[in-house]
Amino acid sequence: MSIYRAISRITRTASSYNRCRWFYSSAPHQQLSPYSGFRSSEQVLGCSVISPWFSRSFRSGGPQPQYEDDQEDPFSLVADELSIVANRLRSMVVAEVPKLASAAEYFFKMGVEGKRFRPTVILLMATALNNQISKPPSEGVVDMLSTEFRTRLQSIAEITEMIHVASLLHDDVLDDADTRRGIGSLNFVMGNKISVLAGDFLLSRACITLASLKNTEVVSLIATAVEHLVTGETMQMSSSAEQRSSMDYYLQKTYYKTASLISNSCKSIALLTGQTAEVAMLAYEYGKNLGLAFQLIDDVLDFTGTSSSLGKGSLSDIRHGIVTAPLLYAMEEFPELRSVVDRGLDNPANVDLALEYLGKSHGIQRTRELAAKHASLASAAIDSFPENDDEDVQRSRRALIELTHRVINRTK
Amino acid sequence: MSIYRAISRITRTASSYNRCRWFYSSAPHQQLSPYSGFRSSEQVLGCSVISPWFSRSFRSGGPQPQYEDDQEDPFSLVADELSIVANRLRSMVVAEVPKLASAAEYFFKMGVEGKRFRPTVILLMATALNNQISKPPSEGVVDMLSTEFRTRLQSIAEITEMIHVASLLHDDVLDDADTRRGIGSLNFVMGNKISVLAGDFLLSRACITLASLKNTEVVSLIATAVEHLVTGETMQMSSSAEQRSSMDYYLQKTYYKTASLISNSCKSIALLTGQTAEVAMLAYEYGKNLGLAFQLIDDVLDFTGTSSSLGKGSLSDIRHGIVTAPLLYAMEEFPELRSVVDRGLDNPANVDLALEYLGKSHGIQRTRELAAKHASLASAAIDSFPENDDEDVQRSRRALIELTHRVINRTK
Repeated sequence: MSIYRAISRITRTASSYNRCRWFYSSAPHQQLSPYSGFRSSEQVLGCSVISPWFSRSFRSGGPQPQYEDDQEDPFSLVADELSIVANRLRSMVVAEVPKLASAAEYFFKMGVEGKRFRPTVILLMATALNNQISKPPSEGVVDMLSTEFRTRLQSIAEITEMIHVASLLHDDVLDDADTRRGIGSLNFVMGNKISVLAGDFLLSRACITLASLKNTEVVSLIATAVEHLVTGETMQMSSSAEQRSSMDYYLQKTYYKTASLISNSCKSIALLTGQTAEVAMLAYEYGKNLGLAFQLIDDVLDFTGTSSSLGKGSLSDIRHGIVTAPLLYAMEEFPELRSVVDRGLDNPANVDLALEYLGKSHGIQRTRELAAKHASLASAAIDSFPENDDEDVQRSRRALIELTHRVINRTK
Repeated sequence: MSIYRAISRITRTASSYNRCRWFYSSAPHQQLSPYSGFRSSEQVLGCSVISPWFSRSFRSGGPQPQYEDDQEDPFSLVADELSIVANRLRSMVVAEVPKLASAAEYFFKMGVEGKRFRPTVILLMATALNNQISKPPSEGVVDMLSTEFRTRLQSIAEITEMIHVASLLHDDVLDDADTRRGIGSLNFVMGNKISVLAGDFLLSRACITLASLKNTEVVSLIATAVEHLVTGETMQMSSSAEQRSSMDYYLQKTYYKTASLISNSCKSIALLTGQTAEVAMLAYEYGKNLGLAFQLIDDVLDFTGTSSSLGKGSLSDIRHGIVTAPLLYAMEEFPELRSVVDRGLDNPANVDLALEYLGKSHGIQRTRELAAKHASLASAAIDSFPENDDEDVQRSRRALIELTHRVINRTK
């Protein structure tokens, strides 16, 4: 079944939309924007105008229902396995040279591992698609095979995390960043040279681990994702004025920079679990749309921060001259905004003016709507997986759908 | 047959030693060192005291014999195929984003492709080990298969060159270099950011090409070589005073930085041509020893330049605080040199003093002897390949041995 046809089935899972708890509990509401244009926080959060199946399923404010069954919390569901992956990651990045070792493990140390969003998605996908041997049979040998098989799937989580961290290390060098995950960035603490080398080391270690899976289609998928990371970064840093004002260019760049790695990892899980090409494509579509939704909300949060108010975010993108979806939508409403952007966002007066236009526009709201659309496409992909009554499989699929809600409702 | 037992067979190929032409034609001789310690240029070139099989085979000065058969010139032998590889390389590094494309192709453009030492070795090895289908049979289908098979082997040359150039791009960023291959370095011309990204792009493109070969053992070998490049670079930039004075540490670093990529590429050719593990190890030993010999001579040339005189080289290593084999040997003769090095080579007075010690020592000579030893081990590995009467195979093997001579007799 095509991913697009599958969308019509989304209403069947509407009940699960009512169980969002994680991000909702700290979700802001009823705060007014300091910019005159905002009509209400509901509009800012973009829930009042989104497609019917979303409007039925969640609200932007007020107390949220708690889970009856904690098993569907995506992160709790894979917590033990995440620990295994984290431990193995630390042992995998051990290098012969002490300086390289401490650089490579910098972001794998306990406490600075980040949200572990990608490994969570991949481990859930591994169970969601792997009903055959998810329950170890009584035979010892088969049990061992089952464990080995699961270890192969966990490797995709480890590889993806190594590549993600490698890209962070190189990005921080490119951006001359001084903090990351609440601590000093590696380039700030140990210098640019070791950061470039540690990134290269993680890429090569990821490639060695990939080779050990003995599936060259998977090697190719993941290597393509690395190329996309580079392409996306270059698109961002070398765009023309024309490209900077194009929503198509922005979405393509966002796919490369954020969505490609997670979508190709999800597809890799499908291939390693022996799924059909059709199911592999659904896994890919889930990752792609979840990644796009994640980044669109990131772009909103850069303006709003943990509050729903415009201007309370770090404004890091706009101050670095990076034009994201909210501004692009605002330009559609106020074409004169483009000339403000073209005059240069390195001038704080132009940044202030651009924020003023954004405040008057529906830019934030429309970005949230677009994120919600991608989240629903991601959910639809999971709903289109072949039917399976296994309890673990069902639970993981619900958790993957739950993740799409958390992504669009998160406030940090 | 073990690589070490094979050395005894080296004398059988002594006749080919007399045909060195390429580097000899411009080889300097009879120039006296400005440093008092040098006794003669013969000693500088390290030929008078090396093992018997070498002393029989070549001399450091005087006119050299020309080839009777130009087919054994390694570079002429693969010239046509090198053009194919170069053209395909240019088409392989095309990127979607123009800026990334021009950065990635920077060192693949006509005229700045470098010596193409690695592709030459790999293409020669491909014929030296590939007697079965080196001659296309008359049947059209088999002919096509033969061409496809050869293309797979050429891919290893392309992959190796992409990885080599990626490492140059990152190294130039680390070293803040401003020239490379006679033109401005990429970081100098287009900036550090695009150089880091172009290096990452080439690594990912190399990995995608590797995956297309559908041999995960080869993926693993080449990825390990990338890890070694990083490890070697880190060893160089983060060594302790103790490590900087250790020959073991220096040789390990040199293997990682220079020899690993070529040795693992040679081994990959053996695997792709279906050779036994023993022959694969011989191919690996050839690459390893050739790479070590190459770098040892590079370290000599950094002191002597195109002349045989000490101090006429660029002295780039010593001025960057990098201690190489000639100085390490000099330290063995004059232990007080170590304290000079420890006081810091960022002080020109210490550099001058170190050069004075080096001039009094046999450091250059002993480095050349070590290079000659590794060159002979490389030759011995080729000599130990399974017997084969095919003319192309024989010619390629002779060319590989010829390369070992050129490497130790080169003056640039």
